[in-house]
Amino acid sequence: MNRRIVFYVLGRIMIVTAALMIPSVVVALLYGEGWTGVYPFLVTISVMVLVGWVLSYRRPDDMTYYMKEGFAIVGLTWIVLSLTGALPYYISGRIPKFYDAFFETASGFTTTGASILPDIEALPHSLLFWRSFSLMIGGMGILVFALAVMPRTESKEVYVMRAEMPGPTFGKLRSKVRSTARVLYVIYIAMMLVLVILLLVGGMSLFDAFIHAFGTAGTGGFSSKAMSVAAYNSTYIEVVLGIAMLVFGTNFSLIYLILKGRAKEAFKSEELRWYLAIIAVAVVAISINLRNVYESVGILFRDVFFTVASVITTTGYAVVDFTYWPLFSRLVLLLLMFVGSMACSTAGGFKVSRVAIYCKMFIREIRCSINPNRVLPLRFEGKQLSKPILRQVTNYLILYAALFTTFTLVVAIDVNNFESAFSAVAATFNNIGPGLGLVGPAHNYSFLTPFSKVVLSFAMIMGRLEILPMIVLFSPSTWRKV
Amino acid sequence: MNRRIVFYVLGRIMIVTAALMIPSVVVALLYGEGWTGVYPFLVTISVMVLVGWVLSYRRPDDMTYYMKEGFAIVGLTWIVLSLTGALPYYISGRIPKFYDAFFETASGFTTTGASILPDIEALPHSLLFWRSFSLMIGGMGILVFALAVMPRTESKEVYVMRAEMPGPTFGKLRSKVRSTARVLYVIYIAMMLVLVILLLVGGMSLFDAFIHAFGTAGTGGFSSKAMSVAAYNSTYIEVVLGIAMLVFGTNFSLIYLILKGRAKEAFKSEELRWYLAIIAVAVVAISINLRNVYESVGILFRDVFFTVASVITTTGYAVVDFTYWPLFSRLVLLLLMFVGSMACSTAGGFKVSRVAIYCKMFIREIRCSINPNRVLPLRFEGKQLSKPILRQVTNYLILYAALFTTFTLVVAIDVNNFESAFSAVAATFNNIGPGLGLVGPAHNYSFLTPFSKVVLSFAMIMGRLEILPMIVLFSPSTWRKV
Repeated sequence: MNRRIVFYVLGRIMIVTAALMIPSVVVALLYGEGWTGVYPFLVTISVMVLVGWVLSYRRPDDMTYYMKEGFAIVGLTWIVLSLTGALPYYISGRIPKFYDAFFETASGFTTTGASILPDIEALPHSLLFWRSFSLMIGGMGILVFALAVMPRTESKEVYVMRAEMPGPTFGKLRSKVRSTARVLYVIYIAMMLVLVILLLVGGMSLFDAFIHAFGTAGTGGFSSKAMSVAAYNSTYIEVVLGIAMLVFGTNFSLIYLILKGRAKEAFKSEELRWYLAIIAVAVVAISINLRNVYESVGILFRDVFFTVASVITTTGYAVVDFTYWPLFSRLVLLLLMFVGSMACSTAGGFKVSRVAIYCKMFIREIRCSINPNRVLPLRFEGKQLSKPILRQVTNYLILYAALFTTFTLVVAIDVNNFESAFSAVAATFNNIGPGLGLVGPAHNYSFLTPFSKVVLSFAMIMGRLEILPMIVLFSPSTWRKV
Repeated sequence: MNRRIVFYVLGRIMIVTAALMIPSVVVALLYGEGWTGVYPFLVTISVMVLVGWVLSYRRPDDMTYYMKEGFAIVGLTWIVLSLTGALPYYISGRIPKFYDAFFETASGFTTTGASILPDIEALPHSLLFWRSFSLMIGGMGILVFALAVMPRTESKEVYVMRAEMPGPTFGKLRSKVRSTARVLYVIYIAMMLVLVILLLVGGMSLFDAFIHAFGTAGTGGFSSKAMSVAAYNSTYIEVVLGIAMLVFGTNFSLIYLILKGRAKEAFKSEELRWYLAIIAVAVVAISINLRNVYESVGILFRDVFFTVASVITTTGYAVVDFTYWPLFSRLVLLLLMFVGSMACSTAGGFKVSRVAIYCKMFIREIRCSINPNRVLPLRFEGKQLSKPILRQVTNYLILYAALFTTFTLVVAIDVNNFESAFSAVAATFNNIGPGLGLVGPAHNYSFLTPFSKVVLSFAMIMGRLEILPMIVLFSPSTWRKV
């Protein structure tokens, strides 16, 4: 383990994140919050720059970089940023308990959008801005992470890293990732700005437009309103945000293809078809189930579309309190929470590609049991999936199920309602935000014990990083000197 | 597909089962139920013998027997027996709807013990006897099935069948299975008779002792009392039944070893150690969670032990209404429902061996992600598990999860409570009986729509046969003539 590079990179990231707090300071000044609004950020920025500078003072001589170091860096980054990013809430006294501030910040950087704030609208603009801006930062972070470290089914170089063969040095990898990351960032920010304009057209204030654009881009779902998007009661805003969420849940390399005029190629993507098919089936199934609840088919369809888009993209904005929908619809939403959106997007959950592979394995298993003589290869995106990939995909299910069960048992000590406990874990581990029942869109996570809050904060980070980095990070053998 | 042999064997099984209805006729006569008690059975016996005789009239010339035929036979057997075994309830008018009678009988033959009867004690003795006797028949059936057809991790010949290579002819297989089956049956019936005597000693009536011995032996859990085992309010009976359930949840080949004086060998079984460890952890965890609910530690421990034994062995007898336990304890029970007991016992669920392998895969995945260079073989019962076996075990998880989700969605149309719908599927698919909430031990399944009842009946049969036989049975290609 090359510890020096881990701390070096972490230090650099802390300095960058400190710089990303400056816009919140500007917001504090613009809205006349004065010294009380500004100083919590200034203190935090000073702490982060200082610690970051100490960590990255000397560039390590050995820049060799393996998967283990990569996992340790992302794991540490998300934890340390959630700890330091919590300082402004805590120092300002707006969130008096540090574990609450940690939960809220972890929820931001993991683009979850689960909140412990009983009264959002009481927050000053600067903190509201920081809260939503953390979603955007988290979204950008996860795009680079998906690019650089996360195991994917397409790329070869990742497997090189996974096998931990003497791999690329950090410098080489960085330059490669950097150029692609720049493309992703340009797309991400450009789409976000388009969304801001569209929301302004719909009559939102500039501040609210930014807040909701951050929340949508990061598929996080923090709102500046206690009633979330329902507060606007506008079909235009609902439709614009609904479509925007689905766009941000799309694989960014496909969006890149479309922007380059190669839309035909993009629409050949199997994952995209699965994604659209799942959305269509969910909207139809829930609409049929709710047909007697709504009087107008148009409003029914609008609300169901928005809710499905919000849940499958793991955003978590709400226009209706779906906790009161019949169980069938609630279960469909719960399933969507697990599905999540496409790989290489800002969304959480299992990701459509994995779910599609599970479905194909299910069908293959059935066909194999009927005709045991036939050899049925599994294809995805036109390529045959190798055995190591299939093993990895099924093992992820086992890891996921074991951790999910553990988290649910822990939360069950606090919460005596099965649906609430189960969906609280589903909504944090999959980075959605609001769940069902006591943690539904009209409620929040404030009633939980500190212990549950910390556990769920780690569930958010674990889910966001697809489990393995956190396991590597907390394994003592990782930190052993070689 | 050799259809003739499928129908031939089915016919023979029907005649045997018709003969197994005679004890119920005797009970009807003993309890003076007269013609009204006797004729439903006589009609059913006539129908079964007639149909069975027609089906097995001519021994097929070709007795070649592959896995496909084996799966079709067991799948058809459980469905046809549930249909014909339902006739006595229906003809007598005691269960006026045929789908209800089908549910109750499927529940019996699959050793589930889920009931649609709102008033058990209103049934005449003959029907009560038949209801519990079906559990015992189902338990015997599943032992032979586990022996002959079910895929196991130990035996080689099963893989020969699974691969559908030109395999053993039916005659050969039958003679081999027959001798082992006879040993299992002797153990099964002997243990049951010992239990009858122990229950008589505890003050139960002869009739009740048989009913509860049948329910325990089949790990089914039908009682002659509406209050189940709580009706006796006897520590002796609770302890005896608790231990007896655990014994019937043990792998019968281990019991055989113990009876042969090779107990030391039996206790080396890794599955047995997991089984006992899971029980111990569950009892301790629930006892700690309930420490403030009970006043006496002795009674607390007794009730928790009984409930854990009842749920993990998928029996479903109740001494307390655990629906009112705190969620943590309910979740532990729910997890036990999925675990089930040991392979080659009469219990349902995933089986301890599979759960142990999942746990080992989980640990291996964690260790592999920390040290990707290391090759870590998976061992169970001292043997290294081959890749096909591991693939089979993980694919079972995917099949199971997909079907479980489907069943839950269907039941959710009827039931608006998450815990009730989820546990209704868990309790039928894993062959337990009572679930939580609206289908808890103090309630029953009568309030469901006919559609849900039929779906859950099939869930019971699917769970009992570990899914694949039912898929093979309902695949059109199975029935194609070659």
